[in-house]
Parts: sequence; C-alpha cells; structure tokens
Amino acid sequence: MSQIDNAFETTMEKLWENKKYNTLRDVLVTMQPAQVAALFAMMPDNAPAPLFRLLPKEQAAETFVEMEPDMQEKLIRSFSDTELKSVLDELYVDDAVDLVEEMPANVVKRLLAQADPDMRKSINELLRYPEDSAGSIMTIEFVALRPQMTAADAIASIRRTGMDKETVNNCYIIDESRHLLGVVSLRGIVMAREDARMQDIMETNVISVTTQEDQESVARLFSLYDLNVLPVVDTENRMVGIVTVDDAIDVIEEETTEDISKMAAITPSDRPYLKTSVWMLWKSRIPWLLLLMLSATFTGMIITHFEGVLSFSIALTAAIPMLMDTGGNCGSQSSVTVIRSLSLGELHFKDLFKVWWKEARVAVMCGVTLAVANFVKLLLIERVGVPIALTICLTLCVTVFIAKMVGCTLPILADKLGFDPAVMASPFITTIVDALALLIYCAFAGMILGLA
Amino acid sequence: MSQIDNAFETTMEKLWENKKYNTLRDVLVTMQPAQVAALFAMMPDNAPAPLFRLLPKEQAAETFVEMEPDMQEKLIRSFSDTELKSVLDELYVDDAVDLVEEMPANVVKRLLAQADPDMRKSINELLRYPEDSAGSIMTIEFVALRPQMTAADAIASIRRTGMDKETVNNCYIIDESRHLLGVVSLRGIVMAREDARMQDIMETNVISVTTQEDQESVARLFSLYDLNVLPVVDTENRMVGIVTVDDAIDVIEEETTEDISKMAAITPSDRPYLKTSVWMLWKSRIPWLLLLMLSATFTGMIITHFEGVLSFSIALTAAIPMLMDTGGNCGSQSSVTVIRSLSLGELHFKDLFKVWWKEARVAVMCGVTLAVANFVKLLLIERVGVPIALTICLTLCVTVFIAKMVGCTLPILADKLGFDPAVMASPFITTIVDALALLIYCAFAGMILGLA
Repeated sequence: MSQIDNAFETTMEKLWENKKYNTLRDVLVTMQPAQVAALFAMMPDNAPAPLFRLLPKEQAAETFVEMEPDMQEKLIRSFSDTELKSVLDELYVDDAVDLVEEMPANVVKRLLAQADPDMRKSINELLRYPEDSAGSIMTIEFVALRPQMTAADAIASIRRTGMDKETVNNCYIIDESRHLLGVVSLRGIVMAREDARMQDIMETNVISVTTQEDQESVARLFSLYDLNVLPVVDTENRMVGIVTVDDAIDVIEEETTEDISKMAAITPSDRPYLKTSVWMLWKSRIPWLLLLMLSATFTGMIITHFEGVLSFSIALTAAIPMLMDTGGNCGSQSSVTVIRSLSLGELHFKDLFKVWWKEARVAVMCGVTLAVANFVKLLLIERVGVPIALTICLTLCVTVFIAKMVGCTLPILADKLGFDPAVMASPFITTIVDALALLIYCAFAGMILGLA
Repeated sequence: MSQIDNAFETTMEKLWENKKYNTLRDVLVTMQPAQVAALFAMMPDNAPAPLFRLLPKEQAAETFVEMEPDMQEKLIRSFSDTELKSVLDELYVDDAVDLVEEMPANVVKRLLAQADPDMRKSINELLRYPEDSAGSIMTIEFVALRPQMTAADAIASIRRTGMDKETVNNCYIIDESRHLLGVVSLRGIVMAREDARMQDIMETNVISVTTQEDQESVARLFSLYDLNVLPVVDTENRMVGIVTVDDAIDVIEEETTEDISKMAAITPSDRPYLKTSVWMLWKSRIPWLLLLMLSATFTGMIITHFEGVLSFSIALTAAIPMLMDTGGNCGSQSSVTVIRSLSLGELHFKDLFKVWWKEARVAVMCGVTLAVANFVKLLLIERVGVPIALTICLTLCVTVFIAKMVGCTLPILADKLGFDPAVMASPFITTIVDALALLIYCAFAGMILGLA
C-alpha cells in the first residue's frame, strides 16, 4: 500500500535479515494496525509469524483484523492453540465472525474450539443472520444502561464494563426485557449533573433497524442522518446489537464496487483486483460477453436484411458505427445518471414521469445539436449528397431520443420489479439501442432515398 | 424522500390547513432534523417558514442544515435579522461555511452581517482553503486539552466548553503553540484515574492531515483506519481543525458519483438529478457526445476506405456491430475494474506489469471462448463459408485481446499523468477499440479471403 514508503520497507527487511528483533519491535509498536498489516504483506514469506509475536497483545489483535484473509490463514496455521486463543480473546465479536466467514472449514473448526464459550455462542448466533443483513454486520458489544440510573451510576457502570465494548460514545437505555427505550451519549452523561437520571436526559426518538434490514439501507441511514452508531433490534424491539460507522463505510464501498461492476457487465466479486485469479476474472466476465455477443446477432441480421438499402452508397454503411456509438453513449449517460440517483435514494418509481419529461427535453436538445453538427460535417467535409446527409441526421436525432428514453426507463423499471438497476447500464442499453437505430436508419433511407 | 410516509404527509398538510399549530409542534419536536427537512420540502410553499418558527432553537438549526439550498434560501429571505442571527448562532462553523458557499451574493452579505464577529472571522478563514481540500471540509470546533491536565481537569474543561463542539469523543492534546502532541478519547478520560495526566494516557501516534490535503485522500484515510475523527494541522503541525466521519461519508459519495459520471462521459455535477435543470444536464453531456461522435468519424473513414473488402459479402458487414460491441464490452470490463481499484487505492502505477500479465491471460481465455462460440454459430446457424467465419473469429480474438490491454492500460497511464482515470472508461475505450477492430478486420479479410 502507498502509505508504506519503499525506503521504509527496505529498512525493515534489512532489520529482519540481521535479526534485530528489539529494534523491529520498537518500530512496530509506534505504528497503526493497518500500517503493520500492510508492512507484513510486503515482508518475506517467513517474516510475519515471528514478527507478529513481537507485538503487544492488543496491537496484535487489531493488526490481525486489518490483514487480508490469506495472511490471516497463514498466521493461524502457524499459531499454537494458546497463541490462537489469546488473539481470539482480544477480537470484537463482529471481527471474529468476519474471520470465521473467510476461513476454510478446518481452520474454522480450530477457531471455534479456541474461542471461549460465550464468544462461540455469539459467533454462532451472528452467523445465522442472512448475508448482507444488519444482523450480519452488527456487533453485540454495546453499553446498556437502565432508565433509573443516575449519571454517576452510569459512569461507574461504563468504567466497570466499557473496556470491552467497541464504542461507549453512545449508551443505550433498555428496560428489563431489553426493549430499547432511548439513547444517551457519553458526552451527555459527562455533561449532566451527577444525580440526573438516564430516563430524564435520554433521547427517546432513536433511529434503529431490525436484524433483517438490508445492509445497503443501513448504510444509507448513516449517510442520511450523519450517524456514528445505529442500534439493531429484533422484531419485538429488543435491542440485540449496534452497527458502527466504520462498518457502514465498508458497506458503502462494497455496494458501490458491486454497482460499478454490474454497470460494466461483470459479475461482482468482493476480492481486490490484484488478489483475484485469472480464472475467477474470466468466470465473472465471460457469461455477459457471450450473452451480449449473441444479442448483437440481431443487429447483424438487420444489416443482412437491408443489404439492398445499404448498398445504395458506402456513406450509409460508413455512418453505422457513428450512429451506434452515439446512441450507446446517449443511452448510457441517462441510464448511469438514473442508476446512481436510485442507489443514493434520490429517485423513486413515482418520479418516472418527471424523469421522462426531463430526459425527453434533454434528448431533443442533444439530438438536434448532434444532428446539426453532423449535417454540416457531412456536407462540407465528406461532401455527401443532401438526401443521404438528411437520412443520417434524422436517424441520429431519433436514435438519441430513443436511447435516452430507454436509458432512463429500464433502470427504474428494474428497480420497481426488484432487480438491481445497475445491470441496465451501458452494455445492455447499447445492444438494444443498436438494433433500434439500424431499423430506424433503414426506414428513413427507404423514405428519403426511395429505397425499400 | 421515502422515509416520510405518504399518509403522514397528508396528515401534516391537513393539520397545517386547519391551523392546528400546537399539534404540529408536538409532532415536529419528536422528529429527526433530516425527517423534518424532508417533510418541509413536501409541504405547500407557504408552510415551511411559519412551521420552522415552531421548532425549538437547537432543532431548528439542525433542521436548517439538512435542507436543500433552495429551501434554505427561501427561509433566509423570510427571516427577520434577529431570527437569522439566532439560527446562525446555533450552527457549527463548517455548516455555516457550506451555507455561505451555496447562497447567492446578496444572501451571503446578510449572513455575514448577522454572524457574530468570531464566526465571521472563522468563515472567512475556511473560505480561503482550496475547494475539495481538508481545510474546506473541516470544522474548527474541537476540544483542546493541555498535556499536564489531569483527567479531573479535563472533564471539568470539557463540561465548561464542550457544549459548542461538534464532537467531544476525541480530545486533542496541544502545547502552547498549538502543536498537536496526542489524542485522548472521552472514554479514555472517563476510564482513567482522576489524577492521571493527559501526557501519560494520550496516544501519541496520531494520524493527521494538512489543510491542503485532497478531500478524496482524507476520505480514504477514514476507511483505511476506521476513523471517526481526523485532526487537521497546518504546515507547521499546529492543529487547526477536525474532519468528522459524516463529512467523510459525504465526500466518499460525492467522489463516487463524480467517478461514475465521468465513466459515462458526463461532466460531474454535485446537484441531485431531480434538482438539475434540463439546460445543466445538456451542458454536462453534449461536449462529450460531440467529441465522441467526431472521433467515430475515423471508424467511418476506415469503412469507406475498405469498401472493396466489405462488398465481398454482406456477412462481413453484418458482423461489424458484433465485433465493435464485443470489443467495447471487453475493453470497458477491464477499464472499469482498473478504475475502481485505482480509486480504492488497491492499485498503483508500479503494478502495471502485474495488471498486463493478468489481463493478457484473461483476454486470451475470453477471446478464444467467444471466437469458438461464434465460429460454431456462423457455420451452423448462419451457414457462411469457412474462410469468412475464420476472418470474423480471428478478428474477434485479436480485438478482445487489444480491447482488454487498452482498457487496463489507459486508466493507469491517466492516473500516473495526473488525470482522472475515470475518463478512460467505456466511451473512450469503445471509440478507440472500434477503429482498431475494423483495421484488423480488413487486414484479416485481405489475407484470408485474398482481398486488398
């Protein structure tokens, strides 16, 4: 990673070769966990395991969480059971669950055997939530307080139990049956009079989600309400966990990468590019290429069918790529804009007419501009006849209009029908618009040039 | 917005029409600021100003921040100077700066006149930082503590000054010249013994950025190190402000929208789609369409030039859309994957050879698969001759290879040269690959079919 300077990496490797373990430890303890993880990934293969043992317990666990799964697996295989247990004990439950999800079965068995019974129970519970649900990304370690506690009681309780919690900045007020009543920030407790009761200072209008909520809408709540933490409740409004903002950011980035992949006709994967095998890349790309190639056959059939029209002048054939590309570009401009607005929650099915009206006007303006520019170019530079130039430019105008309307409609329809709108991006739009453009082209050629 | 139910909206409108102001206030005070802002946007035009006056001071300010700029402007124009001052006094400086940046000049004049002198000075300072820099998104309200303070002193200091700060969860330890020495979390202070000194419990390895740092790399630090707050220092390491995670999330979404727009050949805008005028949409799309249309002319010229070759059989012309589309799709798969990896910081210029080697193998696998599928289709379904099928499929193979190599190389080069790699996505790649595909096509046709 870029944050590790090359010179620094070389120094660390030299220290490692010369067995300067004390110096190495002194340097490592000053570093952030993510930096240590990045450094380990660049060191010789046999270095990470012994270097990892130099780290203090807490830093070791935090570094472990920041590592790529293959490095984690290598380390786990090198650990003794005691070492594994000491790392596991320091992990937050949500990180332990991520780990269990990434590791192969035989490693998982060892992990669960070394986890203490409480953690094992929690891991198993979290594993049962559907993938990509709020339950699967939440942590169950949060500060719970009672409504009748005073600020002084609350601080005593936080001091007693807070060390193991991922965040204490928001404390949740729950009743005996764990129903969520309200929230108080640590700041609010510190600022309050010592004898102020939680039920009097708590905020009762708490935004929460259920465990089944999709992680994408959870992430959207964070950005909409500027949250740092979001409580998760079960179907009976009993509090079961919290989602923290760092997990929300991961979800935002993951979902965006997924959208962008689908827009480019690639099956999404959650592995970084350089870690994805050639075979995996091929598998994620080839089905779409085959499908799109077969559908381009229709365009070919149209050309074959209108052989007579096109043979009238090579200028007609020469304009096909321009018509197809421009149609494709116009369609993808509209579809991508609409897809992004849908995924940011700015646009909904009920806005369909507004979108149509807007895109129709933009389409007319773009179509006329492009057609005029092209008409001038055809007459002055390529010196084709007026009828042919007219055929090409009228087709261009109508194609742009159709492309923009198809481009803005398909993603909204897909979304309404429960499909991911991102699939309705450039490649699909292009394929549809290509065929339509050619049909219009031949129709105009027939009318204007008197061909059929 | 979807979080406001239609039924609820109707109820509120009825209450408004029937002048049930007490009921309205009782409902409004239970709502989150973002919800109130969304509701106001849906109420009749004359409702927001009087409704806004029903809100308690603090909720009013928070709601104001969540509104769209046009609603804010409308409200400001309806405010008396005293009302405006009371809203401004409740705003954090970074929100006030955002407001000043969005409003037209005559509104800004009134805003600055009503801001108290301290805030006016801060606003002017923040406005001087370059757009999209850490300085422009930071807030200058943070908790600063001295190294020799004890935990008890610190809590007293936070209770005295903390109310006006955007966050007190992280407190920064600075010396007399405001140099950043370390950071202590509020949790750390609450957990510590009362007489523990800040210099002994502070974390000294603080990740910070300078005011000039680009906002995109600031956001990347948040996701890389799971931060909630990031301190901002000047060139002499004196602390000047903090960036909070909610601003980082906004930056991530803004920058992603920008990337996605550029990938679809649209000049990015930071306004939501439904709020963007038709004229603005046209302006952001037409330059790229014109540019790409003109470059498609080369493809047309190639077709004109090879008229003789293409007239050999209509099957050759009919295959052009399939070749162009497949080439474009292959190229954009590679370019989009690479662009996303670059923007997530997973990929750098030094990885160019690794990328080439990976893409080359994927390209050969994809090319061969597609060519074989197409060969079978051409022979069995379209019943063209073997030489023509061979010409088409060899071209397909080579085109896929070139498309993938061009697609993965151009974004990395653009990034290295300081341009935004997102511009090197589907539309540009498609235009380049189209021309290359046709040249290769005609060359193969010349060799295999004996044409020239």
